[in-house]
Amino acid sequence: MGEVFSDATRIQRMLDFEASLASAEAQCGVIPASAAQAIASKCKAELIDFAELSKATALSVNPAIPLVKQLTALVAGDNAEEARFVHWGATSQDVNDTGLVLQIRQGLDILHADLDLLSRGLADLAMKYRSTPMAGRTLMQQALPTTFGVKVAGWLDAVTRHRARISEIRKRLQVVQFGGAVGTLASLGDKGLEVGAALARELELGIAAAPWHSHRDRVAEVATTLGLLVGTLGKIARDISLHMQTDIAEVFEPAGAGRGGSSTMPHKRNPVTAAVALAAATRVPGLVSTMLSAMVQEDERGLGNWHAEWETLPEIFRLTAGALHQMADMVPALEVDTARMRQNMNATHGLIFAEAVTMAIGKQIGKSAAHKLVEAASQQTTKSGKHLREVLQLDKSVMTHLSSADLDRLFQAESYLGAAEEIVDRVVAASRNEQPGGIALRSFHG
Amino acid sequence: MGEVFSDATRIQRMLDFEASLASAEAQCGVIPASAAQAIASKCKAELIDFAELSKATALSVNPAIPLVKQLTALVAGDNAEEARFVHWGATSQDVNDTGLVLQIRQGLDILHADLDLLSRGLADLAMKYRSTPMAGRTLMQQALPTTFGVKVAGWLDAVTRHRARISEIRKRLQVVQFGGAVGTLASLGDKGLEVGAALARELELGIAAAPWHSHRDRVAEVATTLGLLVGTLGKIARDISLHMQTDIAEVFEPAGAGRGGSSTMPHKRNPVTAAVALAAATRVPGLVSTMLSAMVQEDERGLGNWHAEWETLPEIFRLTAGALHQMADMVPALEVDTARMRQNMNATHGLIFAEAVTMAIGKQIGKSAAHKLVEAASQQTTKSGKHLREVLQLDKSVMTHLSSADLDRLFQAESYLGAAEEIVDRVVAASRNEQPGGIALRSFHG
Amino acid sequence: MGEVFSDATRIQRMLDFEASLASAEAQCGVIPASAAQAIASKCKAELIDFAELSKATALSVNPAIPLVKQLTALVAGDNAEEARFVHWGATSQDVNDTGLVLQIRQGLDILHADLDLLSRGLADLAMKYRSTPMAGRTLMQQALPTTFGVKVAGWLDAVTRHRARISEIRKRLQVVQFGGAVGTLASLGDKGLEVGAALARELELGIAAAPWHSHRDRVAEVATTLGLLVGTLGKIARDISLHMQTDIAEVFEPAGAGRGGSSTMPHKRNPVTAAVALAAATRVPGLVSTMLSAMVQEDERGLGNWHAEWETLPEIFRLTAGALHQMADMVPALEVDTARMRQNMNATHGLIFAEAVTMAIGKQIGKSAAHKLVEAASQQTTKSGKHLREVLQLDKSVMTHLSSADLDRLFQAESYLGAAEEIVDRVVAASRNEQPGGIALRSFHG
Amino acid sequence: MGEVFSDATRIQRMLDFEASLASAEAQCGVIPASAAQAIASKCKAELIDFAELSKATALSVNPAIPLVKQLTALVAGDNAEEARFVHWGATSQDVNDTGLVLQIRQGLDILHADLDLLSRGLADLAMKYRSTPMAGRTLMQQALPTTFGVKVAGWLDAVTRHRARISEIRKRLQVVQFGGAVGTLASLGDKGLEVGAALARELELGIAAAPWHSHRDRVAEVATTLGLLVGTLGKIARDISLHMQTDIAEVFEPAGAGRGGSSTMPHKRNPVTAAVALAAATRVPGLVSTMLSAMVQEDERGLGNWHAEWETLPEIFRLTAGALHQMADMVPALEVDTARMRQNMNATHGLIFAEAVTMAIGKQIGKSAAHKLVEAASQQTTKSGKHLREVLQLDKSVMTHLSSADLDRLFQAESYLGAAEEIVDRVVAASRNEQPGGIALRSFHG
Repeated sequence: MGEVFSDATRIQRMLDFEASLASAEAQCGVIPASAAQAIASKCKAELIDFAELSKATALSVNPAIPLVKQLTALVAGDNAEEARFVHWGATSQDVNDTGLVLQIRQGLDILHADLDLLSRGLADLAMKYRSTPMAGRTLMQQALPTTFGVKVAGWLDAVTRHRARISEIRKRLQVVQFGGAVGTLASLGDKGLEVGAALARELELGIAAAPWHSHRDRVAEVATTLGLLVGTLGKIARDISLHMQTDIAEVFEPAGAGRGGSSTMPHKRNPVTAAVALAAATRVPGLVSTMLSAMVQEDERGLGNWHAEWETLPEIFRLTAGALHQMADMVPALEVDTARMRQNMNATHGLIFAEAVTMAIGKQIGKSAAHKLVEAASQQTTKSGKHLREVLQLDKSVMTHLSSADLDRLFQAESYLGAAEEIVDRVVAASRNEQPGGIALRSFHG
Repeated sequence: MGEVFSDATRIQRMLDFEASLASAEAQCGVIPASAAQAIASKCKAELIDFAELSKATALSVNPAIPLVKQLTALVAGDNAEEARFVHWGATSQDVNDTGLVLQIRQGLDILHADLDLLSRGLADLAMKYRSTPMAGRTLMQQALPTTFGVKVAGWLDAVTRHRARISEIRKRLQVVQFGGAVGTLASLGDKGLEVGAALARELELGIAAAPWHSHRDRVAEVATTLGLLVGTLGKIARDISLHMQTDIAEVFEPAGAGRGGSSTMPHKRNPVTAAVALAAATRVPGLVSTMLSAMVQEDERGLGNWHAEWETLPEIFRLTAGALHQMADMVPALEVDTARMRQNMNATHGLIFAEAVTMAIGKQIGKSAAHKLVEAASQQTTKSGKHLREVLQLDKSVMTHLSSADLDRLFQAESYLGAAEEIVDRVVAASRNEQPGGIALRSFHG
Repeated sequence: MGEVFSDATRIQRMLDFEASLASAEAQCGVIPASAAQAIASKCKAELIDFAELSKATALSVNPAIPLVKQLTALVAGDNAEEARFVHWGATSQDVNDTGLVLQIRQGLDILHADLDLLSRGLADLAMKYRSTPMAGRTLMQQALPTTFGVKVAGWLDAVTRHRARISEIRKRLQVVQFGGAVGTLASLGDKGLEVGAALARELELGIAAAPWHSHRDRVAEVATTLGLLVGTLGKIARDISLHMQTDIAEVFEPAGAGRGGSSTMPHKRNPVTAAVALAAATRVPGLVSTMLSAMVQEDERGLGNWHAEWETLPEIFRLTAGALHQMADMVPALEVDTARMRQNMNATHGLIFAEAVTMAIGKQIGKSAAHKLVEAASQQTTKSGKHLREVLQLDKSVMTHLSSADLDRLFQAESYLGAAEEIVDRVVAASRNEQPGGIALRSFHG
Repeated sequence: MGEVFSDATRIQRMLDFEASLASAEAQCGVIPASAAQAIASKCKAELIDFAELSKATALSVNPAIPLVKQLTALVAGDNAEEARFVHWGATSQDVNDTGLVLQIRQGLDILHADLDLLSRGLADLAMKYRSTPMAGRTLMQQALPTTFGVKVAGWLDAVTRHRARISEIRKRLQVVQFGGAVGTLASLGDKGLEVGAALARELELGIAAAPWHSHRDRVAEVATTLGLLVGTLGKIARDISLHMQTDIAEVFEPAGAGRGGSSTMPHKRNPVTAAVALAAATRVPGLVSTMLSAMVQEDERGLGNWHAEWETLPEIFRLTAGALHQMADMVPALEVDTARMRQNMNATHGLIFAEAVTMAIGKQIGKSAAHKLVEAASQQTTKSGKHLREVLQLDKSVMTHLSSADLDRLFQAESYLGAAEEIVDRVVAASRNEQPGGIALRSFHG
């Protein structure tokens, strides 16, 4: 992703716009075909003097202006006549924004591919541990048994929704920006819309009903969509890091040479991917709020707020893509200690099975009465350190309703997993039904 | 919208969940039909002791727990047997979240209706001023002529996209939350998914592939979608407030008794709706970032982060709906001074027509050479205060390429509006093609 | 804190401004003394019609305007002559902002008192567990032994800094806002500054060098200072919730009737205060960003951005004060299981003492070589499950440098606590040196 | 500022820590003096292999670990014995954080110098236009006359407060981070605090009462303080850009070759500095919220949240310093059109003097009655387009209280400026009393 949002790629995408614009204008008879060819031949990032560009950008606060100047000089080097037609009828924001759209398209392709990979990795993991019991935890306390498969299915289901979201925003986003200085295309007389349509064809982008120079919901929506995705990556990372705590030790990121080591503690094995994903999840929300704040742009082009987008959106992409890529890479190598999962469920002397008992008794005396009964027994367990099963067995008011065999069953995780396995199946199936990003990609531009 | 997110409505929606749950469980043979009826008969917010509820919520940090306690007591008042089946098999977050989804659905209905209204208002406005010239402004400087219709079309086009977005998120959002304590539905044995499906039917909601207690992208997506919408409302407000400045005076919010007055300056007429929309656009981005930050929730239920959503999402709704409603209401009454628009274009002694001249000369000598020529003339205009037309007329290097009649035409806004009118037509047509919210509303749940 | 930022208190503080303004103007001979008395006699919130006020505020987007209208009517009810002098020479923002400053002063008093309380509670806790060993954890992995006292001292030291910060901002914040419509005090002729000084005396506030209607760093600084404080509260809560995990069980929030219970799991004991503090720490950063975004206000009074502050700052106060109060209240009742702390250090089969061993050997063969040696032994421990002490004892390259008695000592937490106790002493002493808020309070005025 | 936060400087500051640590430890007899010298001789950024460092950092998620490795190898190249003492007793975060503190100190020096420069520029500007009348504007509407000097004084007064704030935070911030792996300094036995004190002396930093690895209020406070400053820069920029609008044209950023030009409109002169400052003011609030969110760090070292600071704080510095530097540079060259200022006050046909008239009549018939009278006349002016003076002159109920000479005086801006000039004087004096940053700089470290 660093690649897609590098200076070199940025400039190349802007040059792609200029080449396509010239070609479109030649097709519409606005400029000579020879000029279009001459321009296209110079639209190569390697011909650009980046140092000069950077210097001039600082003065004009806009890279498009000095870029057009350099391109014009390059074309004029061969033929002054044809250089007249560089950037014909466009405004600097046309090239900035369309270049950005091209970068974003490429960025979304990469995200989509990594999401598909992560999706497959999670689906495999969910199926593998579909029936593996572990403690479910709410508010950071052990609550009831669940399976590791259900936990992973929760992650996967969110990933499936993110794949759908990214497909959906493409139809709004992947459009040309083309309006001229104030959005009327006045500089092209009556040829404006025709050129716009040809330009869209050239770039395989859609046509916007109107120029959107100061209407930034399109790019802000990319930011919010990535913000949602990175939130899920952070959630997965939070779960993994909690399970990887020395005192819990149920799930581990893979170890490796130089990976997650400590400068002073040779035994440390740190959750490196989780750190990256959590860092991204800490940083992206603030960046998204910047993109939303920046939407209040003045008239036909914003002052400062448009400029606030320039580094912010690429930063969001980099952080999201970095975290996603590491996560997709790491998930298949996740180490799971199923024995420890089972062992940890004993930490509460049977309290984790309290609800199972409550429900069983509740069928006979009502949930509320059962709740009180088991609450009392639980408190005794907490105080005495005796196992809940033991406490219950000595409690006549309980044993009126349950046999000893009932208790045996109730204190086994497997007998209180409800719909766990079906939920895993349902989520995995849904993840496989969602069209992969690669296919969805060009589907909307004929 | 205050109504939808009031305490009373919140509690009623939670009670709707409890009534529907009981009904669904009766249909599936999990609880007796008589219990379901008894429970439903008490699921009325007016029976709840709100003071007591508020006190107990502070202790448990969760309104569902004391609410279920009150409901159980109410049912038990008539029949202790049937009270056993209140909230059967559900967890507190099931009722919290499904109640929230019901509130959000109602909230989106209201937004959708106001968006449709705003859309119609803007379409009318755009058509009315489709050809009315005014100064287009970029970076807060006059640039080229545009039409007021094009400006309004820009607003309208963004509104059309927001209408589409809100339709899209409903299919992901309008689903039941139902998983029991850790998302396995263990307390319902093998009946969990069947009850879940019946519950969804009762509430006219979709079924989620898996419980989403700690996967918050669904609700966070509502926040980001509203964040995008409020950004557009802020943009419209910014434009209106700029045009309404005493020194520009092109567009005005309607005046009225007590509306926008000042305590000390009797002549002031303040942009009241713009203030409301700009305040919302200033506040919502930070609230959206909270919703995204809150996504990193622990295991099967988050600690603190889930709770961070509770007041934040309603606040986003209130701010967005308030600004939208005022805007939809105000737009049809917007006052437009078309004469002043034309007069303001003279502020630069003809410089606003500089590009038109550049393009005209550029056709003959190339854009770059023309740019230099007109740049020099513009600088002379700025220095001398003479009108650009006058400066050009005296410049032989210019008059070689243009006749005096050419100049007459070039210095008239109407002759340099490009595709303005077609853009308006295109945007208005697209806005009318987008399905109104009222119809889209129930479309995805059978 | 709800009290301080209630509607009733808000209005009373605004009326305090009006009464003090009248008194100051009477002292300066601007209005008759009898008018000042008449006005003061009506400056009571209980005389105000709040329903009417709320309705009128919606129209004018400013509560001051209808409030002044009501106050004028009240005074006029007794004496129409004297009613002429209500709000004399002031602008609505003068009363809004000064009223807000008075609320904030009261709010900071409350925060200061609770911070002092929290400080004492933490100092006691730190001293009590000054030498109690527990696992220090970095990146959510056990690292080295520390003491619970050191951990608490870290919390305490941050609290001491927050107490200093709140003292510091008061001198900038606790000043009168008084400038008239555009900040020139023109309506008071040559008496403006004299009245301003008298007004400040009346309200026990400082004098601002210039009106600050659109310069909002004063109020934004309150927001950022509370943002820093709530970050620390979140950090304390995060630590407590991690230690309170079922699988770690070292530290517990106190239990109590109805406190932290679950609707379905009778054994659950949830970290309620932590939830409140973490929720606040999730919400406040976004609200602070709103206050900072809102600083970009136009000319002599901002449009929308000023209005964005109105609910945001009180919300920050409420969240911060709520979390702080609960924390100050809970800390003295925190339950600590020192035996479990010691037991948890055994989780890594001695790896937690790896650095101690490394340093001991390092003294003889260099840290880098020692690091490699112990790293190898640690890996053997991880693989085999054997205790690190055992592995080392069998390793000749290690036992060349260490005796068995050395190993005994090295594998005891107490012998590797470094400066732990002195750090606790230093921090506690510093906390006691910081002036309590109650004293600092009025120190800078008069 | 790019310099201060470049990779090279970052690494050099970390090496400064290592050199000073070795020196401090030699002074305390912990390591041999020869080792300290050997280490110091290699603590030069130019000896470091940055490509290798960057690769290794990606794996360990921490630049300190591979840096120490390289430094150790460099020292060992000369003398393996002495290489043993590199980084002795420290943890990676000790070097990361202290290095950061050194960078921040340098960064604040630069900000302070530019703030002093800006302060002088604004003071000169305020004095120059101390009595120059212009329209004061509230809610983007002309309100009353003020002077340009008062407006600038408002900017200046905020800058004075920012200078004080930056001085204040230095005493908390400019301290060493030194605690070893979990903050106990265990690896230095009983020498930890002594070494820490010597290290602080070496680096001219203060001593922290306790290590602050996971207590981030110190660095977060830098972020919030810069956030407040950038808010003021945005406010100044907003004002300038509003005054620079083509239709208002009162104040201009200086023009220059390549500065603020447009690619298609030769006459454009864009507010370049305002764009930079407004972009910064749009971006920094979200970054500040990230720093606050990141404060909730786990135990003795945070996972992901600490890492979230790494790029965020430097970004805040770069944006703030960039905007500040441009502003300080531009302010002395600001062009002011005082004639246009006076002319714009006529835009409302005298309504801007309405309050002056109200106050004059109010002295006789009460403010409320006067308000109504003038309100009616103002409405007539608005409707008829007649000048307010003319309307009033024909109104007998007004002319009972005022003579024609009174009206002459009342409709002159100079006679309604109140305390404007004294306010300017007061603010300029206060700005000159605030100690310049250069002097304050080292004041607190002995």
